[in-house]
Amino acid sequence: MTRTIGGPGASYACLRALRDGHAGSKRFNPWMSIDSALEELTTLEKHAHLLGTVGELLGWDEQVNLAAGGAEQRASQHAALAAVIQAAASNPRIGALLEEIGTSGLDADQEAQVRHARREFERATKLPAEFVREKAIQGSRGYHAWARAKSADDFASFAPILEKNLELARAEAAYLGWGNSPYDAMIDKHDPGLTAAEIERLFTELKRDLVPLVRAITGSPAARRAQAVAARLKGFPIRAQQVFLREVTAKIGFDYTRGRIDVSLHPFCSGTGSDVRMTTRYREDQPLDSLFSSIHETGHGLYEQGLPIAQLGTGLGVNAGMAVHESQSRLWENQVARSRGFWRHFEPRWRKLFPAQTENLSPEELYLAINAVEPTLIRVDADEVTYNLHIILRFELERRLFAGELALKDLPGAWRALSRELIGLEPATDREGVLQDIHWSDGSFGYFPSYCLGNMMAAQLWFKALALRPQLEEEFARGEFGWLLGWLREQVHTQGRKFNAFELVRRVTGEALSPRHLIRYLKERYGPLYLG
Amino acid sequence: MTRTIGGPGASYACLRALRDGHAGSKRFNPWMSIDSALEELTTLEKHAHLLGTVGELLGWDEQVNLAAGGAEQRASQHAALAAVIQAAASNPRIGALLEEIGTSGLDADQEAQVRHARREFERATKLPAEFVREKAIQGSRGYHAWARAKSADDFASFAPILEKNLELARAEAAYLGWGNSPYDAMIDKHDPGLTAAEIERLFTELKRDLVPLVRAITGSPAARRAQAVAARLKGFPIRAQQVFLREVTAKIGFDYTRGRIDVSLHPFCSGTGSDVRMTTRYREDQPLDSLFSSIHETGHGLYEQGLPIAQLGTGLGVNAGMAVHESQSRLWENQVARSRGFWRHFEPRWRKLFPAQTENLSPEELYLAINAVEPTLIRVDADEVTYNLHIILRFELERRLFAGELALKDLPGAWRALSRELIGLEPATDREGVLQDIHWSDGSFGYFPSYCLGNMMAAQLWFKALALRPQLEEEFARGEFGWLLGWLREQVHTQGRKFNAFELVRRVTGEALSPRHLIRYLKERYGPLYLG
Repeated sequence: MTRTIGGPGASYACLRALRDGHAGSKRFNPWMSIDSALEELTTLEKHAHLLGTVGELLGWDEQVNLAAGGAEQRASQHAALAAVIQAAASNPRIGALLEEIGTSGLDADQEAQVRHARREFERATKLPAEFVREKAIQGSRGYHAWARAKSADDFASFAPILEKNLELARAEAAYLGWGNSPYDAMIDKHDPGLTAAEIERLFTELKRDLVPLVRAITGSPAARRAQAVAARLKGFPIRAQQVFLREVTAKIGFDYTRGRIDVSLHPFCSGTGSDVRMTTRYREDQPLDSLFSSIHETGHGLYEQGLPIAQLGTGLGVNAGMAVHESQSRLWENQVARSRGFWRHFEPRWRKLFPAQTENLSPEELYLAINAVEPTLIRVDADEVTYNLHIILRFELERRLFAGELALKDLPGAWRALSRELIGLEPATDREGVLQDIHWSDGSFGYFPSYCLGNMMAAQLWFKALALRPQLEEEFARGEFGWLLGWLREQVHTQGRKFNAFELVRRVTGEALSPRHLIRYLKERYGPLYLG
Repeated sequence: MTRTIGGPGASYACLRALRDGHAGSKRFNPWMSIDSALEELTTLEKHAHLLGTVGELLGWDEQVNLAAGGAEQRASQHAALAAVIQAAASNPRIGALLEEIGTSGLDADQEAQVRHARREFERATKLPAEFVREKAIQGSRGYHAWARAKSADDFASFAPILEKNLELARAEAAYLGWGNSPYDAMIDKHDPGLTAAEIERLFTELKRDLVPLVRAITGSPAARRAQAVAARLKGFPIRAQQVFLREVTAKIGFDYTRGRIDVSLHPFCSGTGSDVRMTTRYREDQPLDSLFSSIHETGHGLYEQGLPIAQLGTGLGVNAGMAVHESQSRLWENQVARSRGFWRHFEPRWRKLFPAQTENLSPEELYLAINAVEPTLIRVDADEVTYNLHIILRFELERRLFAGELALKDLPGAWRALSRELIGLEPATDREGVLQDIHWSDGSFGYFPSYCLGNMMAAQLWFKALALRPQLEEEFARGEFGWLLGWLREQVHTQGRKFNAFELVRRVTGEALSPRHLIRYLKERYGPLYLG
């Protein structure tokens, strides 16, 4: 279908051009159809996106492969690439095409593509090239400075980096026209259309129910029993862990002909489409850690592998934001992989791979260990119940930092105080406190909230899936994960960025995002174990 | 030191500008000094070079990490990156700066930088962007098609790729102004200033002495004994091979804080400066194979790590071409690592790592196995004596293909005939014949000769080093490789691209490149073993 903007006899388009004040302008090409303009726009979007994926690979490689002495050279590579990405994303031709195309007379898909293209173009043109370059260099240096500071437990050496990152974030918000609400600018970057105020409302509601639930669970005798069982899991050879992990992640649907898994300090997933890369880390005495973190990354990977390949890099072939991304990782990690059905299928194989390590472990003990709840100082080690408190803590600190209510020098102390208040534990070192996460090292502020929003979304999606397919868990017990993946592919993955997180939740589940589904899920899973 | 081209009172520069016809031209900036023009040129060169190193990393990753399903996406990434590299390298500002700077009044270093910059700029501006893009896509596809064809022993499926690659090479030569001698254009690409005629002269001279030497060696009883000993080396665990290989390569000087080694189908070395990546492959029954190929790659790596970091990407901080590169890899692999002194140092450790595998092997047998000579069909498995015949074969076929004397359909047959004539063996499959090498898959014609030129250069450099430092081999026996590396750093690595291969050889050794040093070296090493 070719709709013509201008050209002979195209009166509607001519009217529109007149109305938009384009007629007679040199840029206006009366012979260009919307379809051909969209086609050219798509080519330019894909070019910029491909360069972005190369940058992502540089980042992956930096954390998986790069020797320490290569850090400065890598920073220069990031900077050089950032400059050409910026140039590609701010190509004036994109602006001209967007103006040609306008906003009306588009079908829903075209409108989604154009909306995304416009957003990206504005981001690209509002940020000066020199700023982008500086931020890229700072991001790479920041990562290495953070790794050193964490290893040396030395917040003082990291503070100037963090100060610079905050300064760059404020400058970025100002460039983008968010000067009065820089933290909202950071949130919008990761989750289009979401604001700190809305998140605060959701988190406050969640906290109200979650804090007493955590208190009840952690105060129960079963909590100590679960912790004791989990602590008994020791000496699981890494080679066999790798085998099991690979079997599980492939079984639930990760396509290893279009991706891989490696080892890094902090697990992550990067890449998209036909080249998705996950990382994990192995500990002999915490066999469930790398397994669940890998299932988590698999959720991210399934999402990226499920985007429409042909539209990769346009608004129809890019993920809907970090909250939706986290909903996918959390759903597979928690709702699926902590279920009894999942383990009915995988437990025999697990015991076969680790016969000596599991001989004194009953199936019920394993299930309890998988669903152990124990407040911890370290977010990435946290169970799914207390995890949300770690996020509320970080959100609160970021919010205060950006509001100017908290000075950097007081950050470690504020962390300790809030940690005691929410989690009931106070870190003795900054390594276990304010230095524990990678995110602030490259200025990824506004990212943390998406983890908890993702948890809420995952629970809400899960109950919708169960309503449609009550036998899901029995299918898991037979090693069948296809229906769930297919449903997520259709409802979420193939939707690209047509909808933001809130819109998508409403569209798929029929109601607005609410913490009550997460609370219901946690009560249903943990109640029988701890509060029965 | 700031020399002024124009500006008030700079009469010399004004005269030069007048002579060059620049005065009054709009582009001519009378206030710009040579130094500031060179500084800006350096920035632009480094930017293009950094993007090139990112492309190299994409290539490394493709062969080391990429899952099969990611090939098409990677081809698109290569293409997108090639386009921006091309744009950076053909930035009109570079042309303007080169014109400002001119060619006279430069010191030797500046002249070398400008010469290299001019060469790169001309390459970049003479090749149309669409051509560069097409070649990048074809290169990536070609690699995967070759890998499939080789694995299936199916030359027919690879022939259209090869035909396309030849066509692109001819087109490239025509764009660059070498339409009448496209093969020279390919050679010049890898080794500036060298021609097929000169190489043919050197190869003919080499062949004259080498063919009888090979016949004499392979006809001797010791040759069969050496082959039998080498065949007894079996069951060397890969983990221990990795340990030994890493110790050896670090000891001779590879800096693992600025590089790494991984596994790939075909060993190679890529990267430069602070991020140099080598690859190898392991076979339990050929423990010397990955060791020597890794020492070979280490020679390449030492060269790249030894380039002047501050000048990386300019003519002062880029390697002098592939022949010089091969001279470095060959010198470490052959002159150094096949010597008795080298093994006096490393043999005890090797035996300790492989006690059961080496208990019935005498030191003299090991030395014989290390220097075994056995004609083989596979170039990368060839010993250093017969290796040169493999190169002469490929050079001859490339020369005929480009001269139109050989049709693609006759290539496998021509390969077999020449293999029988030179090496005395005829491949039964194309996998062991025309499909064995990666080079033609991405159109790297004109690269092969540099391997043999590098062998000649290595021998010539080696005898010069020995003349300066007769005790070299005793130093190796004590595990001391510092003098040799220091001398190569000074004479070769830190020279960047100031001189081409022929100039460098003459400068360092005091005479023109000649095959007689290689023949002398081979006779001295292999004579006592085989012809004594």
